Amino acid sequence: MVMDFYELTMSNGYFKGKNLDARVVFDVFYRSNPDHGGYSIFAGLEQIVDYIRNLHFSTEDISYLRAQGIFDEDFLDYLSRFTFRGDVYAFPEGTVMYPGEPVLTVVAPLVDAQLVETAILLEVNHQSLIATKTRRICNAAAGRAVSDFGARRAHNMDAAVYGARAAVIGGATSTATVLAGQMFDIPVSGTMAHSWVMFYEDEFTAFKNYAETYPDAVVLLVDTYDVLHSGVPNAIRVAKEVLEPMGKRLKGIRLDSGDLAYLSKKARKMLDAAGLEDCIIVASNSLDEFTIQSLVSQGACIDSFGVGERLITSKSEPVFGAVYKIAAVEENGVYQPRIKISENVEKITNPGWKQVYRVYDENHKAIADLIAGRDEELDEQKEIAYIDPSKPWKKRSFVNCTFEPLQKPVFIDGRFVGDTPSVKKIARYVSNQLEEEIWEEEQRFENPHKHYVDMTPSYYEMKTKLLSQVREIE
Amino acid sequence: MVMDFYELTMSNGYFKGKNLDARVVFDVFYRSNPDHGGYSIFAGLEQIVDYIRNLHFSTEDISYLRAQGIFDEDFLDYLSRFTFRGDVYAFPEGTVMYPGEPVLTVVAPLVDAQLVETAILLEVNHQSLIATKTRRICNAAAGRAVSDFGARRAHNMDAAVYGARAAVIGGATSTATVLAGQMFDIPVSGTMAHSWVMFYEDEFTAFKNYAETYPDAVVLLVDTYDVLHSGVPNAIRVAKEVLEPMGKRLKGIRLDSGDLAYLSKKARKMLDAAGLEDCIIVASNSLDEFTIQSLVSQGACIDSFGVGERLITSKSEPVFGAVYKIAAVEENGVYQPRIKISENVEKITNPGWKQVYRVYDENHKAIADLIAGRDEELDEQKEIAYIDPSKPWKKRSFVNCTFEPLQKPVFIDGRFVGDTPSVKKIARYVSNQLEEEIWEEEQRFENPHKHYVDMTPSYYEMKTKLLSQVREIE
Repeated sequence: MVMDFYELTMSNGYFKGKNLDARVVFDVFYRSNPDHGGYSIFAGLEQIVDYIRNLHFSTEDISYLRAQGIFDEDFLDYLSRFTFRGDVYAFPEGTVMYPGEPVLTVVAPLVDAQLVETAILLEVNHQSLIATKTRRICNAAAGRAVSDFGARRAHNMDAAVYGARAAVIGGATSTATVLAGQMFDIPVSGTMAHSWVMFYEDEFTAFKNYAETYPDAVVLLVDTYDVLHSGVPNAIRVAKEVLEPMGKRLKGIRLDSGDLAYLSKKARKMLDAAGLEDCIIVASNSLDEFTIQSLVSQGACIDSFGVGERLITSKSEPVFGAVYKIAAVEENGVYQPRIKISENVEKITNPGWKQVYRVYDENHKAIADLIAGRDEELDEQKEIAYIDPSKPWKKRSFVNCTFEPLQKPVFIDGRFVGDTPSVKKIARYVSNQLEEEIWEEEQRFENPHKHYVDMTPSYYEMKTKLLSQVREIE
Repeated sequence: MVMDFYELTMSNGYFKGKNLDARVVFDVFYRSNPDHGGYSIFAGLEQIVDYIRNLHFSTEDISYLRAQGIFDEDFLDYLSRFTFRGDVYAFPEGTVMYPGEPVLTVVAPLVDAQLVETAILLEVNHQSLIATKTRRICNAAAGRAVSDFGARRAHNMDAAVYGARAAVIGGATSTATVLAGQMFDIPVSGTMAHSWVMFYEDEFTAFKNYAETYPDAVVLLVDTYDVLHSGVPNAIRVAKEVLEPMGKRLKGIRLDSGDLAYLSKKARKMLDAAGLEDCIIVASNSLDEFTIQSLVSQGACIDSFGVGERLITSKSEPVFGAVYKIAAVEENGVYQPRIKISENVEKITNPGWKQVYRVYDENHKAIADLIAGRDEELDEQKEIAYIDPSKPWKKRSFVNCTFEPLQKPVFIDGRFVGDTPSVKKIARYVSNQLEEEIWEEEQRFENPHKHYVDMTPSYYEMKTKLLSQVREIE
């Protein structure tokens, strides 16, 4: 029942209009990357699969809908027996994606296609947003660990839990959210809050108690009173007086306020002077990719970042704008393309049932994506002509390239035929693409290179023809 | 298990240190209003109550924690039998709140207080954020209806559902999210998407089919092809040719793109000229309080706003920064205040166990809030002296005022003793406060008046004394 009411009013209308078996094609795509980035990461597919497999209307749901007083009994009866009967094709979860591409396509009877809209968009929009944001943060951290600390500022519990999942897909090494660790088998981390330090009569006693409890994983929060005059000296004292006699080493300290560049350098010197070169410095406090990039460029001595509110809400850009648009309607067994025109050229949709290919050069670098009609065959042995829609007058071809179809079947006739890899596997897939296949120039923050999303000549021709048929009325 | 891992590591530590029954006082407060506003709305309490009442650790949870390899068996055994044993005091849900006030206070054994931290913060932060944002949007709409259309851009399902709840608390008249309607008995609304219009061979046929299905609630989406040359004329034709013969009226049209001020005025004239003065105009498309304020000031003919992504994510300020800080520790039966100092003066906490009073003048206008020690008695028959912490040298008194204690008991010794009013009732409470009690000057967007949060002299003295005892070390 997590769906927009109009999905139900429309479905009831289609039902009454006897349009129950007409199949349609809906595409999920988005129009621009968050934070003016060069790419986004497709995430949330596993939860879409769960939703579609479990989609049903309980007796209470039906009663609730009946009480709205606008639905036909026949329709409610139909809903009470509803299971999804359509096909779903999607990019594998974790695939790098670009604006304008159909990253997920539903080919289904009209009612089925309508009822899954809200949940699909909500999952794609939330998890792609957080995965993409986290990747930016990890890029800024340049190899240092990034941990999700965001639960308390998340937009409720699912946002904390699925946000943590998406963060790990985007490159976070761990999360503080226990349930996310439990559900997705991802590492959890966390040590102490200021309240631990404040509960005890003094900071040293607080640290000592902690070290005695967890001698193997002592990360001490050193900023409750005064980092350099109290926190770090007490941490060193614990390392020497409590841990060393046990044969243990101090694992780390955490800075959560103040000038992190200055404090981390000073703290590093104090730790090193005490022979604690292996003690790491963790930093947190309203961090994001920009503050982290600045800290790294200032030579801050930080080994690991805890990132909270700005990751879990994607604060700089908290909306991922994927939409769900009708692309074709089945008429007498043929999928007739539909196009939505708009006064904004970039809001014109790509009509018809499509496939997207990632185009790799001989070094397996992704040089472009290519949109083709669903039935088009690409013969890799030959040159493959393409159109750059921003310069349609140019004749161009891909030579010696390989073409990977990105949309894979997930459901066929309502039956799940895809797979749902582990979060760790998805995270590796993301890293592999970004480290091996995707140009670095697309990954920088400032003016990233714009990935080419080209079209085959026959697809482009179909779209142009359809556009020209639309009556010009203004 | 929606909690930060450190709640568990700390709890295990307290458990081992035999600090199981030491009671502590934790306050929830926040430091600044979103969007530079003059107030915020406290929301999420019902879900906090649900969480605390149901807090327990299942066998699977215990196994998961055991597998982390750092928790003592005694502690895991303790957790497996855990139920919350503390007290909770909170502002009634929907209360207008101000920075620095303890809006919720937990007085509980240390472990109990720690384990509820993440969930409390997450609910307060999410729902207060959305309720406050929605109130701003409703203020801009100046009496016109505001509906939540945000589910598809929400940060996952809970954010859609509890966000809708918070939106209604903030003043939204309805939501499009069906599950929120079902769970909280709030009105749901929604009509059609562009796909409805695109599915049919032409716009008129699409409108006609809809009108025949829902003759009593026809709101037609008129911007799929061309608002003024196709959408509105087809809507008028449906009103005349389909609805009027049935004795029905066209309820409304919806604009979802383009220049909403211009289009709504033109559409209004066309509708009026056709005798459809009672047909309302609904507008949507990336709206927020600023665009709505601008539309209203331009004289746009809009009766109702559908607000999506910028409401459900509070896009302009997606983080509400409530924190959970220790304020006192029980020692020999007395709650000894604790203070956290900071180089930022505004980050110094208010120590001790407190009560907050709203101070009303003779016209029942809220002229200030007053923080007092928990045990202080206020005698309304006398002048009540107070200190404005920003001008502590001035001697001032409240005369002929009434004092309403804002924190009410919610749990006592783990037993729920509060109430959970309906969302509709909370929403009425919010409106009553903002329309009757809270100064308009606090509600404007630009430079709102800052509400006074004063202190009783004895509370102020205790805080100052505690501050002066903190050793000055730099």
